[in-house]
Amino acid sequence: MSADSASPIGRDLHINPERLHRLITELSRFGKDPKGGVSRIAFSENDKAAMDWLAEKMTDAGLEVWVDPAASIHGRRRGRDSGAPAVLFGSHIDTVPQGGDFDGALGSLGALEIMMTLKDKEAETARPLEMVVWSDEEGAHYGKGFFGSRAATMGLDPGELEMVDEEGVVLADWLRRYGLDPIRLDEARLDAQDYSSYLELHIEQGPVLYGQGKQIGVVEGIVGIDRFDVTIEGFANHAGTTPMEERRDAMIAASRLTLAVREEITAKPGRQVGNVGWVKVVPGATNVVPGLVRMPIELRDVKKEVIGAVAERIQARARGIAGEEDVSLNIELSGRESPCLTDAPLRGLIEDVAAEGGFSTLRMPSGAGHDAQVISKLGIPAGMIFVPSRGGVSHSPEEWTDWEDCARGVEVLYGAVRNLADVDKVVG
Amino acid sequence: MSADSASPIGRDLHINPERLHRLITELSRFGKDPKGGVSRIAFSENDKAAMDWLAEKMTDAGLEVWVDPAASIHGRRRGRDSGAPAVLFGSHIDTVPQGGDFDGALGSLGALEIMMTLKDKEAETARPLEMVVWSDEEGAHYGKGFFGSRAATMGLDPGELEMVDEEGVVLADWLRRYGLDPIRLDEARLDAQDYSSYLELHIEQGPVLYGQGKQIGVVEGIVGIDRFDVTIEGFANHAGTTPMEERRDAMIAASRLTLAVREEITAKPGRQVGNVGWVKVVPGATNVVPGLVRMPIELRDVKKEVIGAVAERIQARARGIAGEEDVSLNIELSGRESPCLTDAPLRGLIEDVAAEGGFSTLRMPSGAGHDAQVISKLGIPAGMIFVPSRGGVSHSPEEWTDWEDCARGVEVLYGAVRNLADVDKVVG
Repeated sequence: MSADSASPIGRDLHINPERLHRLITELSRFGKDPKGGVSRIAFSENDKAAMDWLAEKMTDAGLEVWVDPAASIHGRRRGRDSGAPAVLFGSHIDTVPQGGDFDGALGSLGALEIMMTLKDKEAETARPLEMVVWSDEEGAHYGKGFFGSRAATMGLDPGELEMVDEEGVVLADWLRRYGLDPIRLDEARLDAQDYSSYLELHIEQGPVLYGQGKQIGVVEGIVGIDRFDVTIEGFANHAGTTPMEERRDAMIAASRLTLAVREEITAKPGRQVGNVGWVKVVPGATNVVPGLVRMPIELRDVKKEVIGAVAERIQARARGIAGEEDVSLNIELSGRESPCLTDAPLRGLIEDVAAEGGFSTLRMPSGAGHDAQVISKLGIPAGMIFVPSRGGVSHSPEEWTDWEDCARGVEVLYGAVRNLADVDKVVG
Repeated sequence: MSADSASPIGRDLHINPERLHRLITELSRFGKDPKGGVSRIAFSENDKAAMDWLAEKMTDAGLEVWVDPAASIHGRRRGRDSGAPAVLFGSHIDTVPQGGDFDGALGSLGALEIMMTLKDKEAETARPLEMVVWSDEEGAHYGKGFFGSRAATMGLDPGELEMVDEEGVVLADWLRRYGLDPIRLDEARLDAQDYSSYLELHIEQGPVLYGQGKQIGVVEGIVGIDRFDVTIEGFANHAGTTPMEERRDAMIAASRLTLAVREEITAKPGRQVGNVGWVKVVPGATNVVPGLVRMPIELRDVKKEVIGAVAERIQARARGIAGEEDVSLNIELSGRESPCLTDAPLRGLIEDVAAEGGFSTLRMPSGAGHDAQVISKLGIPAGMIFVPSRGGVSHSPEEWTDWEDCARGVEVLYGAVRNLADVDKVVG
């Protein structure tokens, strides 16, 4: 495959799809899992080796490279106006256990490919450009995620550095193993005045683009999430000797609530979603009527009013179920991530660039969280570009995005970045 | 409380309720759990100490005592006709973790109290009497239960002695720690010709007698149990990016099936019961649509045709749910215990004795399994006597049976045993 034949964009939007393919394939060697997929967990030897490899590639691309105290890698390319706010773009390279080759990797190596292309073309931009690879987006090691982007914006939670992993290693020790100084963590914070905007390219991780045969997703916003802890208390009793009408079965109530969540989430049209991802039954014996059930409810939508209305209807249903089944049923908010809307002019720019390349586009929410949502809290305009995930599969060895789709996504990012950095001044 | 005032039976049915109370209280010291209740798990130091204490009491009661190779304790009292088949009666003394004071203990120590009463009265019977305390009824250690009664009848499962517990100890080693020789296990088998009948007194472990204010339960039969393993396979997917209508959510299907089990079990009048005691969700993450669910279904009734009909209707419901939710749903029989009817003349005898004492009775099924059900497979007539469990609670530190109810149960057992052993020849 040559760059010319694979690049769907004519004129000067070309990036090098072959090189992009090679970079993604090379990165997948770090953490290749014998059970399938890639396990490149944040704060691990695999992650560190991948970072070293990437930092070297970034240096070769002529960037000024540094790792901030939160382990995110930055690579800066000078603009003619060295004091102007820079265009920031990137993603992450850590994965979930047995994750795929594209989640995070596409946006990170796509950013590198753009820097390489600009070097090939000996291009000049007005504004500086900065690519960034945020550390620990997935939270697969210490549970929280968005480590690098949170450190760069609102800061970490108090005591977060003292979290201990399964092997007893404190997070701060992992930073030290990376050669970083946790005492200087505050220096990872970015100053909003130094950046004009943030762009992130990512695979959709859902089935919408693939299902509708669209090439480029223009992300309207990243969904907010309300998470609830549910506790249902009935009465554990002998499953042989307790007549059906005398049972106070917590699992029956949990089953009814699980179905009520789906009914309420789908009661009105829209893209809101809800999930009951696990159920814990106590005492959990085949011959004992369940006395206690714990389960989570997760609700997501780009509009927090939609989440609020669904949550209220679920609460009402829960009260009804508790009364009918003679159990106590408590639903408590355990976590909230606010929805984030992308910048309207950036959405328009992405659409314009895609149209220039002749690519079909679809405006859509992002059902998954992304670093872009955290970076938007800095107060700079943020935008996101999606490309299709085959069958909507992600966080799995089966995750796949066609190489042509990868190239299209990078070319749209390239066009948008060039525009933001003063496209008309690019040479070559 | 004196024996006279506490014994609700006049004439010669007296046992010693104070001594019974004392025996039950003393046994509860073995395995007293600091978290509440009694943890006298089969094959443990607590269980062994209780056995030694009980064997000594049995010897003091003038019985010929031996522990069979399966760790059941036997205590025999000679009859005038030493070659006649003996009357066998007893129960068990092992408990579930944090169990109660009465489950098994009442029938075992009630049997001892009867032997002590006969000694006090210097009574003679025509037939020999044999009390027995079956080992490991609960199965709380190695999972199977009815160890002693199975070894005495149809024999154990092949390889059962090689089962390993959580601390890595093989069951055969526990028998050796008890001073027994597992090689001689076959010698635990009883010969049906040596026994005329089997009687067991037990707390109901259900709410029926207590709820209806009846004093003595005459057990018509012990329910049969069909156990099923259910496997539901949907597709694990990102709970944010997968639209509701594209989900194949195994937990939704599991919830519908759990409710269908209750609907089908209660669709027709009767005392049949059904339970879904636990649910295991894979991958089991808050933000992942459940891809796989495993759960059990347990169905019980005294008539196997009732169980069969309910199971068939549940299978039909499962097929419907699988189609509608686009999941695969497999229900497989994993275990079956046949229902067992008690001997009709023994039921009549128990009612006659109770009537003589002026006690109210109720014919009822046993929803729980008991050693009596296993012993009936020997081909000898078996009968069971129930006394009320307060609130129907059992397998719990809150398990309770009033001392008057305990005494009433033992006196009915005493009357029935004497009748079977030729009551008119009892002296004293």
